[in-house]
Amino acid sequence: MSFKEELQKKTQKIEELLGQYLPKEEGFQRTVLEAMNYSVTAGGKRLRPMLMQETYRMFGGGGKVIEPFMVAIEMIHTYSLVHDDLPAMDNDEYRRGRKTTHAVYGEAFGILAGDALLNFAFETAAGAFDMELSERTARAMQILAGKAGIYGMIGGQVVDVESEGQAVSKDKLDFIYRLKTSALIESSMMIGAVLAGASREEIDKIRKVAEDVGVAFQIQDDILDVTSTLEVLGKPINSDDKNHKTTYVTLEGLEKAREDVEQISRRALETLDSLEYQNPFLNDLITMLMTREK
Amino acid sequence: MSFKEELQKKTQKIEELLGQYLPKEEGFQRTVLEAMNYSVTAGGKRLRPMLMQETYRMFGGGGKVIEPFMVAIEMIHTYSLVHDDLPAMDNDEYRRGRKTTHAVYGEAFGILAGDALLNFAFETAAGAFDMELSERTARAMQILAGKAGIYGMIGGQVVDVESEGQAVSKDKLDFIYRLKTSALIESSMMIGAVLAGASREEIDKIRKVAEDVGVAFQIQDDILDVTSTLEVLGKPINSDDKNHKTTYVTLEGLEKAREDVEQISRRALETLDSLEYQNPFLNDLITMLMTREK
Repeated sequence: MSFKEELQKKTQKIEELLGQYLPKEEGFQRTVLEAMNYSVTAGGKRLRPMLMQETYRMFGGGGKVIEPFMVAIEMIHTYSLVHDDLPAMDNDEYRRGRKTTHAVYGEAFGILAGDALLNFAFETAAGAFDMELSERTARAMQILAGKAGIYGMIGGQVVDVESEGQAVSKDKLDFIYRLKTSALIESSMMIGAVLAGASREEIDKIRKVAEDVGVAFQIQDDILDVTSTLEVLGKPINSDDKNHKTTYVTLEGLEKAREDVEQISRRALETLDSLEYQNPFLNDLITMLMTREK
Repeated sequence: MSFKEELQKKTQKIEELLGQYLPKEEGFQRTVLEAMNYSVTAGGKRLRPMLMQETYRMFGGGGKVIEPFMVAIEMIHTYSLVHDDLPAMDNDEYRRGRKTTHAVYGEAFGILAGDALLNFAFETAAGAFDMELSERTARAMQILAGKAGIYGMIGGQVVDVESEGQAVSKDKLDFIYRLKTSALIESSMMIGAVLAGASREEIDKIRKVAEDVGVAFQIQDDILDVTSTLEVLGKPINSDDKNHKTTYVTLEGLEKAREDVEQISRRALETLDSLEYQNPFLNDLITMLMTREK
C-alpha cells in the first residue's frame, strides 16, 4: 500500500472512532450536541490523533486505552478552532469551505459548543481510567490538560491575539509557534509514548521531535502564504500581509525561512531515528507535514 | 464560635487556598493570567469548595488531596460566570458591583480567560494524581468532568439560553435547575464523599442531597426576585419578569414555590441526617443556602 493509501485508510479509521465517541443528538440540550458534532465532523486531517496513535505503535503500544485520548485531543483542537472563528476573535464565517459553527448556530452557541467540546475532551479522557488506572493514564491526563492550557495552546493563542497589528520580536514569535501550534502536537506524541510505556528519556526526545514538527509546520504555513496560489492552497494567499501579521517570513525573510524549515525538519527526523523503536509510517507522516505544498 | 464566624473563617481559608493555586502573572501570556485571576478573585461565597470540603470532613476525610479539586470546582464555576456575562450571552457589564471580565479585558479575552479557567481546572485537578493515584482520585476526576459538561452544567446552561423569551414547561425548568445549578453542587459534595472513601450508597444519598440543595437554592432565588427589595438583595428585583423569564414562581405561583422549597429542604436535611456520619456545620450551611433571605 502506498503512503497516501495508508494515510487515507488510517484517517478513515479515526473518523469512525470519533463517530463512536460523539454524543447522541437527543434530549433538551440537543442543539448544543448538534453544534458540537457539526464542528467535529467538519473534516480536517485528524493529524493529532494520528500522531498519537502512530507514536503509541512505534513504542509497541497496542491497546484500546489510547482511543479516548485520541478523541480528546481532536476535540480540544476542534474547540480551539470554534472559538478562534468567533466574531470577537478572527470573525471567520467559513472554514474549509463550510460555514463555521457560530455562523450556523449563532454566537452564543459557538461559545457554548466550544466550551462543551473542551469539557467533553476531559470527560472522554477520564473514561480511560475505567480501562486502565495506572501512572501512564494519569500522566497522559496531566499532559493533555497541561499542553492545552495557559502554558500550552491557550498561552500561545492569547499572545497571538494580543500581538495582532503589533511588531512582534523573534522571541515572542517563537513562543507563539511553540505554544499555539507545537503544544498539541507535543501532547499527541507524548501521550502516545507515555501510554506505550516509553522511558522518560524517550518521552523527552519525542517531545522535542513534536516541537520541531509544529514549528516547521507553522513556518511552512507562512512560506506557502507568500509562495503558493489560491488554487493550490485552497484558501486566500498573502493573508498574513493583508492582516499585517508578523510571520517567520516577514521577520527572517523567505530564504532564511526555507533554510530553517529544512534544518528543523532534518533535526526532527534525526532525533526520531536516534530512538530504538521505529515506525516508517510516522517518519513519512512527519516528513509530509514539514514539506507539504498545501 | 458562631456559625457566622465559622463560615467567615472557612471562607477565608478557601481564599488563601485559591491564592496558592492561582497562576503567577508573568510571561508573554501575562494578560490572560491577569484576566483569570481578576475573575477568580472577584469574590463570591466559595460555596462549592466549602461544600466539597465539609462533605469530605463529614466522611472522615482529612488529607490534602481534596485541595486541587476544591480549587478546580471554583475555577469551573468562575469560568461559567465569565462566559455567561459575555455580550453574546447575558451581556452583563457588572457582577457583584465589579466590572465583569470582558468589560475590563475585552470580549476576546473574556472568551479566552474563560477557556483558560476551564482548562486550568482540569490541569489543577490532574495534579492530585501526584498526591494520590487511586480509584478515588480517578473517580473524582470523572465526576468533575461529567457534572460540568453537556450532561451537567453546560447542558443546563444551553437549554436556559435557548429557552429565553419562550414558554418553558415544568419538565424543562426542572431539567435546567437540576443541571445548571445542582450539577456543580452534586459534583462538589460527591467528590468530597468519594475522596473520603464513602460507600456507593452513601455517595448516591449525597448526590440526592446536593440535587435538592441546588433546586431549593434556585427556587429561593426566584422567590426573592419577587418578594425582596433592592436594598436587601443588593441587585435589581423583578428582573425575571422584566426579562420575560419563566421561573418556578411564574409557573407554580408564589405559595407553591414556598411550599416546595420548604419540602425539598426538609427532604435534603432528612437524607443527610439518615447517614451514619454527621457534620453539624454542613447541616447549618445547607440550611442557610435553602432559607436565605438574600
